[in-house]
Order: sequence, then structure tokens, then C-alpha cells
Amino acid sequence: MSQIGGFSVDQLMELAGLSVAQAIAKVYDKSSHSRVLICCGPGNNGGDGLVAARHLSHFGYKPNIFYPKQSTKELFQRLVTQCKNLKIPFSNNLNNLDEQLLNNDLVLDAIFGFSFTGQIRTPFDEKLKETKLPIASVDIPSAWDVEKGNIDNCGFTPSMLISLTAPKLGVNQFTGKHFLGEFAKKYELNLPPYPGTEQIVDITDLSKGKL
Amino acid sequence: MSQIGGFSVDQLMELAGLSVAQAIAKVYDKSSHSRVLICCGPGNNGGDGLVAARHLSHFGYKPNIFYPKQSTKELFQRLVTQCKNLKIPFSNNLNNLDEQLLNNDLVLDAIFGFSFTGQIRTPFDEKLKETKLPIASVDIPSAWDVEKGNIDNCGFTPSMLISLTAPKLGVNQFTGKHFLGEFAKKYELNLPPYPGTEQIVDITDLSKGKL
Repeated sequence: MSQIGGFSVDQLMELAGLSVAQAIAKVYDKSSHSRVLICCGPGNNGGDGLVAARHLSHFGYKPNIFYPKQSTKELFQRLVTQCKNLKIPFSNNLNNLDEQLLNNDLVLDAIFGFSFTGQIRTPFDEKLKETKLPIASVDIPSAWDVEKGNIDNCGFTPSMLISLTAPKLGVNQFTGKHFLGEFAKKYELNLPPYPGTEQIVDITDLSKGKL
Repeated sequence: MSQIGGFSVDQLMELAGLSVAQAIAKVYDKSSHSRVLICCGPGNNGGDGLVAARHLSHFGYKPNIFYPKQSTKELFQRLVTQCKNLKIPFSNNLNNLDEQLLNNDLVLDAIFGFSFTGQIRTPFDEKLKETKLPIASVDIPSAWDVEKGNIDNCGFTPSMLISLTAPKLGVNQFTGKHFLGEFAKKYELNLPPYPGTEQIVDITDLSKGKL
């Protein structure tokens, strides 16, 4: 198992997913946005989404997981088991994304993170640009370039971003609600202290055009 | 790695330790109780203490880890590395417990949990009974019997208890502040909902004489 600073991927993903769930709960009240469509990609960003789904369920939300390309890695299979034990519904049919969007109040974009450099695929590209639902993205909006941001305005723009490491250049264009997970702290950015016992800090004002 | 419901020990310990740190932060303000002596035993209870130390450090507390009998397991060694990377001081000299108690504001008893059936050893038995510092215990006060509680009043009585699974019979005698970690939820006790996005719930009133 690969490790960073003595941390296992299990641990880091647990803390990342918890940060994501807490940030969502801070911005979107469950009385109006209980049904959260968690769109998970095949890599670690998708794993963060699976952990977030579990915590959101514990917080009283109704997550629905859309996970068309499931990882065969043991860690991811365990994360799936944990969600299934909580009776969180799964869907993996790409043709059903429209229907899923109609039956949810909010989208969590856990499709791709910083390590992805290609283009986001159909149907995510079109459907997430069309939807009127608010979108919260993990790490970077999945359709944006890590360095250049939203090239030619091709990608969807989320209403909220949760950065789990030091935000990258491409995020500079983002002007919505912006949270940073506790673990970014180790990058020793010049950040405000994390309030209370939360795993997140609001950097909306700090990050506007300043990264 | 052993697993419960698809969870790795890494994940469960991370969530347990986070619950412990959050419960402490809820009861003991860091302005008056910043220095927390984390007494870690050789098993999983001690691992919960190591994770709690790390989160308390992130919350702005000054943990000091007293860990005389360190585990050689890889997971525990990683937890130690994570704490050392945060410059949390370690002590392993049993003769120094007195001095440690003088230089801290609060004790976290992460010595033994439910799986332990023997007697707590010197110097913990005497020193933790003598100290005037408040003690927060993980799972069960380490000197108590899992079923019979504080036999003949021999063990120290903590001021606060953080249960990480369904509380056991021996805890029935405990009348102090009592928190329950989120994961006890899966035991489907008849509990109040977990408030907000916290990993803990206060069951002080619920648990008095009712377990």
C-alpha cells in the first residue's frame, strides 16, 4: 500500500471523504438538498466520493451513487461494501444519468482529480453542463484542465469546490464557494486556522484570484 | 488486515481516534486544557489514542504521548510517524509518569479497551488514582472490569468516557460525561441522532443507569 508521511491510502481517503461530506453539509442543508447524486470516477477521486457518500448518509442525507466504471482494487471494493451495508443505492448505467439528475437535488463531482489530464467523457461532459442542479466538485472540476482551468469555457462550472491538497493553478478562475480539507495544512500554505474540530476551512475569499 | 463490515483497521481506528479528539474538544476548552497527556497502551486502544493525539494537535491542543510499550505492528508504527511529523513529544519511561502528570492539564486514558481482562499495571494504577487532573477514558476506564465495573472501588474514575462501540455492562456505574462515537450506530441502539456533521453524540443522560 503506497504511503505519504506514514499515512495509508485508506486513512487519507477516509479523511478526504469526510472533509467533502462536511463541506457539503455546511453549504447545502439536508432539508432542501437531501438527495445527493455522487458521480464517482474510476480512480482515487471516485474513492473520495464513496467515503463522502457514507458520511453523508450518517449525517442524514440520501446519497445515490453513480459509479459506471468501478475499480477492481480491494480498497474500492471495501468502500462499495460499506456503502451497500448502509443501503445506499448504486447505479452504473451511463444511459440513466438523465434520470438520476431528475431525481436528485445536488451533484457531487468525484469523477476526476488532479492526476487526470484527458477529457471528461460522454455523458458527463454534456449532462453536467446542462443540469440546473448545483454541483460540488472534489479537487478540481472534472472537465477543467489542471493548469489552464476551463479551456474555451468547454467544461461545466460547479457552484462549490472542495480542494483536498494545495489548490492548483487551473482553479484560479473559480469564483464559487471554496473549501480546503485539513490535510492541505501539511503543505504549509498561509491559511487561516481550521475552526473548531472540523476537517475543513472556508477559503472562498482567500482563493479568489490569489492562487 | 482484519476487517469488519468492509472496514480496514486503518479506517476504523482513524474514525475512532477522531471521535475521541472531537469529544475531548467539546468538553475541555484548549484555552484551559491545552496540554493533553495521551497514555497509550500496547493494543488497539493505544492506537485510538495515537490518532486522537494527531487530531488534537490539528485542533490546536498540545498533546504529549506517553507510550511505554510500543507495538511493533506496521499500522502502529505509521501512526507514531504521523505524530512525530507533527512534532508531538513522545515519552516511554515509566518512571517519568509523575513528571508528565505535573506538566499536563488533562489525561487521555487510551491504555486498555474492552478486550483487556487483566489488571492495569504499575504505575498507571496508583498514579492515575492519585492525580487531580481530569481523565478522559476511551471505551472503558482502563482499571475497570468490562462486566463488573469498578470492583471494590480499586480503579481510578475518569471524568469523561468516550464509548466507541455499544457501551458494556461494566460502564453502568459511570455517571460522568459520556460520549458515543458514530460507529456505535451500526449496533442499532435506540440512540438520539448524531447532531450535524460530528462523529460523536452526547449520551450522558441516556446512559445513566440505563445500560
